[in-house]
Amino acid sequence: MTLATTDPDMDAAAADAFSIADIDAAAQRVTGIVRRTPLLESIRLNDRRGARLLIKAECLQHTGSFKFRGAYNRLSAMTPAERARGILTYSSGNHAQGVALAARMFGVPATIIMPADAPAMKRRNTAEYGATVVTYDRHGENREAIGARLAEADGLTLVKPYDDLMIMAGQGTVGLETVAQCRELDAVPDLALAPAGGGGLMAGFSTAMKATFPAVQVMSAEPEGYDDTARSLAAGRRLSNTGTPPSICDAIMTPSPGELTFAGNRKTLSGGVVVSDAEARQAMATAFEELKLVIEPGGAVALAAVLSGHVDVAGRTVVVVASGGNVDAAVFADALALKGRAT
Amino acid sequence: MTLATTDPDMDAAAADAFSIADIDAAAQRVTGIVRRTPLLESIRLNDRRGARLLIKAECLQHTGSFKFRGAYNRLSAMTPAERARGILTYSSGNHAQGVALAARMFGVPATIIMPADAPAMKRRNTAEYGATVVTYDRHGENREAIGARLAEADGLTLVKPYDDLMIMAGQGTVGLETVAQCRELDAVPDLALAPAGGGGLMAGFSTAMKATFPAVQVMSAEPEGYDDTARSLAAGRRLSNTGTPPSICDAIMTPSPGELTFAGNRKTLSGGVVVSDAEARQAMATAFEELKLVIEPGGAVALAAVLSGHVDVAGRTVVVVASGGNVDAAVFADALALKGRAT
Repeated sequence: MTLATTDPDMDAAAADAFSIADIDAAAQRVTGIVRRTPLLESIRLNDRRGARLLIKAECLQHTGSFKFRGAYNRLSAMTPAERARGILTYSSGNHAQGVALAARMFGVPATIIMPADAPAMKRRNTAEYGATVVTYDRHGENREAIGARLAEADGLTLVKPYDDLMIMAGQGTVGLETVAQCRELDAVPDLALAPAGGGGLMAGFSTAMKATFPAVQVMSAEPEGYDDTARSLAAGRRLSNTGTPPSICDAIMTPSPGELTFAGNRKTLSGGVVVSDAEARQAMATAFEELKLVIEPGGAVALAAVLSGHVDVAGRTVVVVASGGNVDAAVFADALALKGRAT
Repeated sequence: MTLATTDPDMDAAAADAFSIADIDAAAQRVTGIVRRTPLLESIRLNDRRGARLLIKAECLQHTGSFKFRGAYNRLSAMTPAERARGILTYSSGNHAQGVALAARMFGVPATIIMPADAPAMKRRNTAEYGATVVTYDRHGENREAIGARLAEADGLTLVKPYDDLMIMAGQGTVGLETVAQCRELDAVPDLALAPAGGGGLMAGFSTAMKATFPAVQVMSAEPEGYDDTARSLAAGRRLSNTGTPPSICDAIMTPSPGELTFAGNRKTLSGGVVVSDAEARQAMATAFEELKLVIEPGGAVALAAVLSGHVDVAGRTVVVVASGGNVDAAVFADALALKGRAT
């Protein structure tokens, strides 16, 4: 379905409101706090795919995903009065952990609304960083409504997971680092892929990549059943997913692209790729074997898109973002049991 | 038992023959080829141990272990005539892969003698890099004798796994990078630990660390049954292990310290720590959860020494080398099944 809130004029204005200058400013704020994650290359994977694959290992970021970047950038812009009152957010787990750690660093009380079926590791870690966790039923309750009610009652600042220019700019520092690392390698990427949930990483990453490499083709990767970005890009307007089918890619089971994120992504992206749960698991197993990285299902969909042959990479230099690694042990062991050598 | 070949005068001469200048020279040769692996820090692990733990993620090196550094450095010093004839080595798997990749880069034919019970991943990868793999019985045959016979027959250059100054110097670049990364973090390490097999990494790493941080205490970590370095350091002379008891730490089941490596290590090391297989598995599970790294059993013994409380780290800044990540999926899944949260 088409979202009622889509307004081409507003989209255009929002897109104009976000630029590489926002990401450069974010980089100034997060440098020295955020980890510069490595851009890894496996000679054996390159051989197998006949391509040069450069994997941005954002699973090695603090809290195990890129989300810490946006959260830290967002909190750094709050006033002392806002910080004293506290913040609130909703998240399936990675944004939750990123916000919880950033809040701890700034001494800000944090309340985090998480689905009751979020991975145990994500709930536990969020609480251990000192945040107050409130759970809700992903299938029956509306997290935005719960959040608005709690935020209003206590004067809390809502830290949105993706549809916020400061969040998008923070996530964009993944792209800035990748640009610098490509230059260190004398690599000019032909193609770049990242996982897409609400599109915050996608918007920041694609903006940063295209600012330096205007000819690079940037694509989103999503799991089956949650291909709202791919379909929205094809339609030229925001479309939402139907229902909440099961997926192992818990990190990116978002209902639709964000308004601000899609306004940017419709200008920078060439399209979206969709992968199955089995392909995501296979990519996790390959990353275990060839990269020695722990990647969670949702974080592995861009790698899965490349390894499973859904995009043509032959002879090309391809950047792939591995966006997170917060996966429960049983899920990871299941992926390894597949053997991991299909490509 | 004491090794018959130990000669204090020779040890002293050998120790004098190896210095930070060798490692600096190696760094010149390997820069741009060897990956600068990240020095990772987990806020949650720091909290748990009451220390600042800096983990050198050498499992992210090309071929999945530090061994590529020494192999590349060694091969870079060969003459064209030597390269044309080819090389030979023996290895339980990580040195094998490092040599196989370096040989491929230099276009050198490589023959590699591996134990028949080496992990499947290590044998397969070594062959896929283009090396000729010859297997032997770890419990009944002598790999050095097989190697000498093959090398003599074909005029091959033997690339020793550790007891070679060029190998030690190459492995020492792990330490040079760690020094630079500590400085970037304004960290002055009080303690540094690395896994010890034959002691090549230990010798290079400790020499590099102490050249910049003379007060740092450097210790080896070994698995039970293969604690030859710990006992040799305590005795002040090279002692060998008795028999070949089972261990999951296949990478560091070496019979005794090397002559050249021990000559260096007896000057730089403060002692050795010994961990159980269970503690190594626990460290692997913790690295999965908190660092998103795949570490193999032998590569995890230094981390295990710190997490299991065998060394006092409270209030200290501690560097830990995670030296490799080449572990079969079933072994890794077994480690995860332990839950991984004992610390």
